[in-house]
Amino acid sequence: MPDHRSLIDQRIAAWAKALPSDGLYAPMAYLMGLPAKRIRPLLVLMACELFGGKPEDALDEALGIELFHNFTLMHDDIMDAAPLRRGQPTVHAKWNVNTAILSGDAMLVKAYQLMARRPAVAAIFSEHALGVCEGQQLDMDFEQREHVSVADYREMIRLKTAVLVSGALRIGATIAGAATDDVRLIGAFGEHLGLAFQLRDDLLDAFGDPTKTGKQQGGDLLAGKKTFLLIRGLELSAEQGRDALPAELAKPSARRDVPRMLAELETLGVRHEAERAVQREEQQAAASLDAIAVDEARKASLRTLSAQLMGRSY
Amino acid sequence: MPDHRSLIDQRIAAWAKALPSDGLYAPMAYLMGLPAKRIRPLLVLMACELFGGKPEDALDEALGIELFHNFTLMHDDIMDAAPLRRGQPTVHAKWNVNTAILSGDAMLVKAYQLMARRPAVAAIFSEHALGVCEGQQLDMDFEQREHVSVADYREMIRLKTAVLVSGALRIGATIAGAATDDVRLIGAFGEHLGLAFQLRDDLLDAFGDPTKTGKQQGGDLLAGKKTFLLIRGLELSAEQGRDALPAELAKPSARRDVPRMLAELETLGVRHEAERAVQREEQQAAASLDAIAVDEARKASLRTLSAQLMGRSY
Repeated sequence: MPDHRSLIDQRIAAWAKALPSDGLYAPMAYLMGLPAKRIRPLLVLMACELFGGKPEDALDEALGIELFHNFTLMHDDIMDAAPLRRGQPTVHAKWNVNTAILSGDAMLVKAYQLMARRPAVAAIFSEHALGVCEGQQLDMDFEQREHVSVADYREMIRLKTAVLVSGALRIGATIAGAATDDVRLIGAFGEHLGLAFQLRDDLLDAFGDPTKTGKQQGGDLLAGKKTFLLIRGLELSAEQGRDALPAELAKPSARRDVPRMLAELETLGVRHEAERAVQREEQQAAASLDAIAVDEARKASLRTLSAQLMGRSY
Repeated sequence: MPDHRSLIDQRIAAWAKALPSDGLYAPMAYLMGLPAKRIRPLLVLMACELFGGKPEDALDEALGIELFHNFTLMHDDIMDAAPLRRGQPTVHAKWNVNTAILSGDAMLVKAYQLMARRPAVAAIFSEHALGVCEGQQLDMDFEQREHVSVADYREMIRLKTAVLVSGALRIGATIAGAATDDVRLIGAFGEHLGLAFQLRDDLLDAFGDPTKTGKQQGGDLLAGKKTFLLIRGLELSAEQGRDALPAELAKPSARRDVPRMLAELETLGVRHEAERAVQREEQQAAASLDAIAVDEARKASLRTLSAQLMGRSY
């Protein structure tokens, strides 16, 4: 039996091959063809299997979730004026902004063609899709806002990242005919897993090994991005009357001293706080998975995947 | 019993009132609140009633179709860099491009929330939504292309305008439980009606009374837009070795002589050809409606609406 990842890769390759090769569809195939972790479709298949379904039953919806995720990347990259995605030119850079808008729109419709064959699945998908849009809106709002609290930040990453992880799992469970309570529990597992994933991403951006992450160390700090680290760092700096972090942020981006900012975040205890926050989310994720009353053997693939995500250093 | 238009206006007003008032939702309420013909939702209700359904049964889908139409306007206006829509600032002009992209995305999701409760309706909707995206892509491609044939142009307006008119009717009929053949016939009626509507729009842009259309006379000609009139005008100019039209087009847009271009289109017989093309589409629309085997009294509201659209001078 092919493993989950092979099933997904084959389904995506077959989908791309059947697409028309012209303007609107070429950018979809390009973006979907770039190397990616494909975690969300894996979660759809694993949740389906957890509740007694066959992974093959959920393959269309797994593809739909990955199409939706890539649609959000295509449009987010326009909004962020990002030149690169997965190390390659973004769609709006390779084609143009109008094509990236329109191809993204069509990609969302293609996602719905796969998600709307079961009204219950479509309803979950729409709920989570709206959450992702609201999260992106908050993310953009935060750039303009003076004060963002840790609670605001958590809500933003919950919407922007965690709800789609949660949605993928709820959809897989629904396809398998899971009970309402179980759909809720697997959704909670996903939400905490997604929050842990994003908070760890913030930590790795600052303290990770750039040869492993492939990103510039402290890129978020240089950009002044209001992540957990910067928000808590500034709060604690104000409480303790320490000036290093505000002084660095007052400088133009290119002249900021990243090692000094990292050292200050260590001294303030922010790195430790962030690591604790990741652990809390991981524990809550594990508790939700524990509470689901299915045979432990069935949970193995989800436990393995979440352990990989939790232990990653890239 | 309230008429169809009142039902739709009330449903849209109630929908707008229930929306959150913040960033992502304010542009949706703004655009949906501008004065509009609301033809597509009317067609959903009328098609439902034609096949024995109650208009109230299709109100959610009528709202969904109008949401989708407004989503396309929000994104098309970005692509066209249009400052005004329905005489008011466009969403990207009033807010900004990023908000218009994201609010439009969320609007498409909101449309699907209303369309995806019946898989058969969702499938028709997705098919037509993809057509609209493909039509917009062709429209943009044509601006860059040297040669566009009348057949190319017809296919573009079929996708960009006619398929959504056709889709609205097929969805209304499907909600009422119409037979497959009847859904096909009402769809054909809509497609020809939509083509007639767009071809007449092109004619009115050139030869309509600007005090009635509210548009600059010959705006498409000034812009060098490849509509039926210009495509056929250039074809016939080449065949007959006449220079007036190519000479005007060779000038910068602001210096083009619109009265001279209009006179040339008359002389070449293009205006007459376009009027004939409108009539042909209208006749085919009427023939499709005639072929539907339901009581003639049931067809009255659709006949009235299409007569209004066909006879309009604005």
